[in-house]
Amino acid sequence: MYKLKIFSISKTKEPWLKDAIEEYSRRLQPILSIEWHLLKTDAQLSQLLSKEPSYVALDPTGKTFTSEDFSSWLVSTLFAESSRLSFVIGGAEGLPPEILNNALAKISLSKLTFTHQIARLILIEQIYRAFEIDKGSQYHK
Amino acid sequence: MYKLKIFSISKTKEPWLKDAIEEYSRRLQPILSIEWHLLKTDAQLSQLLSKEPSYVALDPTGKTFTSEDFSSWLVSTLFAESSRLSFVIGGAEGLPPEILNNALAKISLSKLTFTHQIARLILIEQIYRAFEIDKGSQYHK
Repeated sequence: MYKLKIFSISKTKEPWLKDAIEEYSRRLQPILSIEWHLLKTDAQLSQLLSKEPSYVALDPTGKTFTSEDFSSWLVSTLFAESSRLSFVIGGAEGLPPEILNNALAKISLSKLTFTHQIARLILIEQIYRAFEIDKGSQYHK
Repeated sequence: MYKLKIFSISKTKEPWLKDAIEEYSRRLQPILSIEWHLLKTDAQLSQLLSKEPSYVALDPTGKTFTSEDFSSWLVSTLFAESSRLSFVIGGAEGLPPEILNNALAKISLSKLTFTHQIARLILIEQIYRAFEIDKGSQYHK
């Protein structure tokens, strides 16, 4: 079973995406467990990330992917990282340099800026999509 | 008041994003009305779009924007189009050529592929963000 952690700054709780995010977490359960770490400040983020063996930063300066490329990248990165991977989602201003510089990889979901919660939804849906693409299902068609 | 129509193919109804989409529609109400047209087939889409004076196609081949660029583009396009604009959201396979070829503009939300419902959520949140950027609010920070 794969183990993912997702770190994000979240100052506000918007209830209306909770169900959507939970639905994808539920669908992923047989193959993947996800731990969410919702923090208040960049300093808390830095402190927690310093304890992670490696992490991937979601940042506007990162590499963009098609869903198919993201699928290949995710599956091979999970293999290389012993089935464990952490993601950190940056804010509108991006992540601080000390977090970015130590990232295993930097990826961007879009040139557009999203709320933290929409970024979390997109990330988890793309992770679900990545496994569906990898197993050759029709979900992504 | 601006008038937008959003056309999309939607074969399934996933209840868990409804609240999020409604929340942005509600926030936009003072300045913008949105009519959603959820259709079952490309043929229905073509037929309805042929009655629109102009429409913008969301398609993987389209131009990508930052949220700031999208804001400028949306405000100037609404001005040029007498405050009315229609959007059509393509599926994973993109829109059929007859729809794409007649579009006023082609835009892409991301290189990633999204579900129809997530594409609708991203589009409406970016429209809301576009007006907040235009009026100089702090929403997008």
